[in-house]
Amino acid sequence: MHIPMPPEFSKAAAHSAGRQVTIGKHDVAEKDGVFDLSIGLNYGQSIGSAQLLRWVTEHTELVSRPPYADWRCALTIGSTGSLEAAYRMFCDRNRGDSILTEEYSFSTALETAAPLGIKVFGVKIDDEGLIPASMDEILSTWDETARGARKPTVLYTVPSGQNPTGAMQGEQRRRGIYEICRKHDIFIFEDEPYYFLQMQPYTGPNAPALPPPATVEEFLGGLVPTLLSMDVDGRVMRHDSFSKVIVPGSRLGWVTASEQVIERYIRHAECCSQGPSGFSQLITYKLVDEEWGHEGYLKWLMNLRLEYTKRRNAILAACEKFLPREVVSWTPPAAGMFLWLKVDHQLHPDAATRCLIDIEQEIFDLCIDKGVLACPGSWFRAEQDKPLSGLFFRTMFASASEEQMAVAIERFGAAVRDSYRMG
Amino acid sequence: MHIPMPPEFSKAAAHSAGRQVTIGKHDVAEKDGVFDLSIGLNYGQSIGSAQLLRWVTEHTELVSRPPYADWRCALTIGSTGSLEAAYRMFCDRNRGDSILTEEYSFSTALETAAPLGIKVFGVKIDDEGLIPASMDEILSTWDETARGARKPTVLYTVPSGQNPTGAMQGEQRRRGIYEICRKHDIFIFEDEPYYFLQMQPYTGPNAPALPPPATVEEFLGGLVPTLLSMDVDGRVMRHDSFSKVIVPGSRLGWVTASEQVIERYIRHAECCSQGPSGFSQLITYKLVDEEWGHEGYLKWLMNLRLEYTKRRNAILAACEKFLPREVVSWTPPAAGMFLWLKVDHQLHPDAATRCLIDIEQEIFDLCIDKGVLACPGSWFRAEQDKPLSGLFFRTMFASASEEQMAVAIERFGAAVRDSYRMG
Repeated sequence: MHIPMPPEFSKAAAHSAGRQVTIGKHDVAEKDGVFDLSIGLNYGQSIGSAQLLRWVTEHTELVSRPPYADWRCALTIGSTGSLEAAYRMFCDRNRGDSILTEEYSFSTALETAAPLGIKVFGVKIDDEGLIPASMDEILSTWDETARGARKPTVLYTVPSGQNPTGAMQGEQRRRGIYEICRKHDIFIFEDEPYYFLQMQPYTGPNAPALPPPATVEEFLGGLVPTLLSMDVDGRVMRHDSFSKVIVPGSRLGWVTASEQVIERYIRHAECCSQGPSGFSQLITYKLVDEEWGHEGYLKWLMNLRLEYTKRRNAILAACEKFLPREVVSWTPPAAGMFLWLKVDHQLHPDAATRCLIDIEQEIFDLCIDKGVLACPGSWFRAEQDKPLSGLFFRTMFASASEEQMAVAIERFGAAVRDSYRMG
Repeated sequence: MHIPMPPEFSKAAAHSAGRQVTIGKHDVAEKDGVFDLSIGLNYGQSIGSAQLLRWVTEHTELVSRPPYADWRCALTIGSTGSLEAAYRMFCDRNRGDSILTEEYSFSTALETAAPLGIKVFGVKIDDEGLIPASMDEILSTWDETARGARKPTVLYTVPSGQNPTGAMQGEQRRRGIYEICRKHDIFIFEDEPYYFLQMQPYTGPNAPALPPPATVEEFLGGLVPTLLSMDVDGRVMRHDSFSKVIVPGSRLGWVTASEQVIERYIRHAECCSQGPSGFSQLITYKLVDEEWGHEGYLKWLMNLRLEYTKRRNAILAACEKFLPREVVSWTPPAAGMFLWLKVDHQLHPDAATRCLIDIEQEIFDLCIDKGVLACPGSWFRAEQDKPLSGLFFRTMFASASEEQMAVAIERFGAAVRDSYRMG
């Protein structure tokens, strides 16, 4: 089996452009490798192949260095699958269990909780995401009868480049969240698909860009620490994914948690997914271990974040050029691929007579008419039965070209102007 | 991406031995194919890629020709995953739901039901597997209080080469089972990993083998019809798998059922697995569609069944040679990879004083001492709280060589003789 190197973001991969990697059927028996088709394509353990498991464990040690002894990793079929398993491991609808998350949260995480009968409650957010004091207040004043659910025992959070708001929790914010979780004995699902897409600081449209980290050590040292790295209690289950940094179609990721939690996770996988695809494991292993190694993978990520920085800067430039600043505002994202646009609903000419959801729908429809998709904030509400707290639209700077992003933002601006009758 | 052809069973694949198949990133845009890396490795639909879905739908039409209009297929992450989803779609522990299955049944299917709180009840079996009259009696005399569960609404069955008994339901048996399911409105999970491993009839150690089917049409015509092919009510959800016929590590299979059931299945997959690996889909598609086509795949299966026929004949020859016929008996398997050995417990010298499970454990331990694994019947009991109905051991003729199988059977025979103190 021959594997071409990923063709995108070719600078980092330039040293291997066009190279082919080979996997034979009996490489192990023939002492030509430690992982081969006869192993990877047979029935395996639900925890994943020993080879790739070793690699993700080493990588996790390098990045998070969890501060307790008995942490473990397990490969997953992707973070939606591992999150669903985690919900089922920690929550029980019959007990009236509930979870906390950002007041605007990842729609798939919400849609995965719903059929399990797990109630979701939203915590207030600011530019740095989830606000610890809001979480503390919710938990300290919990009224089971009024809420119709037991006091939450789990927090689901996307600390870096949160979907949909793009918010980035800084180190102190993370420590604050962790402390509130200790206080109320909350277990944390740390979902981090965008962790390595922490970008260069935004310096404005005309200021010179800051120099990027020069070495792998500098890159790692500059990343905001993970919740896992602060986890002195073993109360974090971190969900990592290759989807946003190598390939979504691999359906391959991993979780990290205490041995006790991982053991339960594996039991779950044994009577459900039975672990990720052997093809995905083999190909990913060949790439990240044999071809790149840890340093090569981190260099790939260093380059990837610069590509995202460029895209982020391009979409921000388009916003500055095309959006009516008197009603639309935003915070430059520090990680990920989402830009969250806030539209001041109090300035809408119909603010006194129409409800927010109605104005949101109008702007959404106007966008569609103009050929652009801007995902409305209501799609991401943690509590779907509560009134909207504002007018928000999620935009994305992952795969479109700079020109396409400019066209999209211009159309969004025109839709807002139409709705606001700004002529 | 280059894919080598499967190296095993090289006769059928001889025409393509050593050939390489290529998948490019933009084959579709470049009009060089209908499926490429840019599609297969991106986020996809949970139902699976349109390309491979078309192929499995055509294949299902060729093999089962379901007798109603609105049947559909969906790709799966393998049959354990799709079975778990099916349990959750059809059964609810809070309602006290239960299912029926063979009294000795596939252990993973049992272990998958257990944590969902679904009670499992066993139906008596004979050499043709599940006995319709036993099923009818259980359902007709169901006492919810005595059973501690609602009358079952689902049957889980492996009609061909059942795991662990190797039993093969003939056409009339299948029609009988289907009729009882209609009578009691039972939905059927038809799990068929070994369907195409229907072997040549066993003609004894010295008789000449019967000639195999000469054409694909003859092969298809000679297969025992599927339950899906008899399903005039849309009460069958069939689970197909590539694991036993191409590669277990692909974690790829498909389900077939009515549009209504498939729609629910897809909703389930959307908040759980999100569909199978893109690598697995791409590689399987290239092989079964572009390289083999339907006829080529069926020829592959025709050859595979002859290989299994040879292995089955070899293990039966070893049994005839090495086992004490006065206490061990068996039925030559007509499909699959399992041989179920029945040991007459009434002839055991301790029959009057020791319980069956104790004698079973002794024989198992003696086997382990001699270096052979014979899976005891108690591992497969549908109702773990009931006493054993006999002494059974499951053996397998899938991957071991003829010599290894002979050694294993000889050791098993020696273990039985030791336990029976046959000197």
